[in-house]
Amino acid sequence: MEKLSIVKIGGNIIEDEASLSAFLKLFSGLEGKKILVHGGGKRATHVASKLGIESKMINGRRITDAETLEVITMVYGGLVNKNIVAKLQALNTNAIGLTGADINSIKSDKRPVKEIDFGYVGDVKQVAHNAINKLIQANFTPVFCAITHDGNGQLLNTNADTITSQVAVGMSELYETSIYYCFELNGVLKDINDKNSVVKHIDSDTYKDLLEKGIIADGMLPKLENCFDALHNGVSKINMGNTSMLTQENDNFTTITL
Amino acid sequence: MEKLSIVKIGGNIIEDEASLSAFLKLFSGLEGKKILVHGGGKRATHVASKLGIESKMINGRRITDAETLEVITMVYGGLVNKNIVAKLQALNTNAIGLTGADINSIKSDKRPVKEIDFGYVGDVKQVAHNAINKLIQANFTPVFCAITHDGNGQLLNTNADTITSQVAVGMSELYETSIYYCFELNGVLKDINDKNSVVKHIDSDTYKDLLEKGIIADGMLPKLENCFDALHNGVSKINMGNTSMLTQENDNFTTITL
Repeated sequence: MEKLSIVKIGGNIIEDEASLSAFLKLFSGLEGKKILVHGGGKRATHVASKLGIESKMINGRRITDAETLEVITMVYGGLVNKNIVAKLQALNTNAIGLTGADINSIKSDKRPVKEIDFGYVGDVKQVAHNAINKLIQANFTPVFCAITHDGNGQLLNTNADTITSQVAVGMSELYETSIYYCFELNGVLKDINDKNSVVKHIDSDTYKDLLEKGIIADGMLPKLENCFDALHNGVSKINMGNTSMLTQENDNFTTITL
Repeated sequence: MEKLSIVKIGGNIIEDEASLSAFLKLFSGLEGKKILVHGGGKRATHVASKLGIESKMINGRRITDAETLEVITMVYGGLVNKNIVAKLQALNTNAIGLTGADINSIKSDKRPVKEIDFGYVGDVKQVAHNAINKLIQANFTPVFCAITHDGNGQLLNTNADTITSQVAVGMSELYETSIYYCFELNGVLKDINDKNSVVKHIDSDTYKDLLEKGIIADGMLPKLENCFDALHNGVSKINMGNTSMLTQENDNFTTITL
């Protein structure tokens, strides 16, 4: 099987012009077929507040009402996505910016209302791997923002980590897929106070061990669960670290396999 | 040669939810391969004013400064484009939303500064007909907003009528192309005060005649010049009228050929 890399960047990279440019150079230099997924970051909150739209949070989680969805569609789907595409073109990467509505690539279900009504938030249901593959086979590089649709005309705000893992799982039907989660840390850390205490390799056995020792906790817990879920569903390898893991020189990041 | 229709809608359709839905149904029903191009309308002006960005006009023409370009990228490239794509998907048209940066489809030159500095405005230089055709051959329906790029990472605000004619000219290398310019009028009118006085057919001879009689004047003049330019460069047929010209029932619109 041919290899395919799916790279996810978060808000911290997008918000800083220099970091974004540096990252896009690394991404362009990454060999082989690839997909980029980007979150949105605080830019949407900033535009919303300028437009007089209050950010609604319940238990620390954002509620996407109709107005907020409009802002997200403007900022993630328009401003951030299209500027990334234009910058990648300047680096000779033939990018194509997508939401899950484009080529019906990612269908979601609007999250059911239980204790909390999250509003226009989607849980990924279906990834059209064959449609996405048509773009890849045409030598285009898909750039997904964190928006999907329900198939009935409704766009839905969707977690970028989930989009990344679900697209990777979908593409595993056709490729040997690796995920690169770029974030602020150098990887999964043994000691949260020592940024160089990177656990270089995690597999099912060491995962259990790290869980028992309480080394994987808090915010890292759902991330790792999500990773093993993707690995159990066909993804070959997941890398977590800062953007320099895309170069060949740096091996100080975490690689996760089954 | 296979046929390809390029349909352009303006701001008046986009701004009204009911008109847009009705149009998208007609567009979805249009047989054969097709491309949609949409302008932006007043929505961008509205968002800009809410964000405290003043619309700068010189001699009645809009100046696209950096802030205005951001709003245009948000509104045309994000909000309007992605909602159209989601709605077309619900009508089983496998749409893909694009700026000229995506798949490097439309390259422009930033308009040179002469008497007026129009800011981040692009004049179309190159249409990548083969790249666009890869999408069409994959049975995707391209939906272009009025944004292009310069190839060096800069997005540029670009006239939607020009995008339409230039994309049509480019695609004429591969298809027998027809343009449908949807606007408020039923077509080119003999008498501007009689909305039913449609000139049903214009060719090079009748065009000269209409010009001499002063029937084509004002805003219609550059539109018609643009049409004949496209026809001289490979486009087969151009239709101008209201959206109902996309149905088979209505023949009360203007068709222009060489």
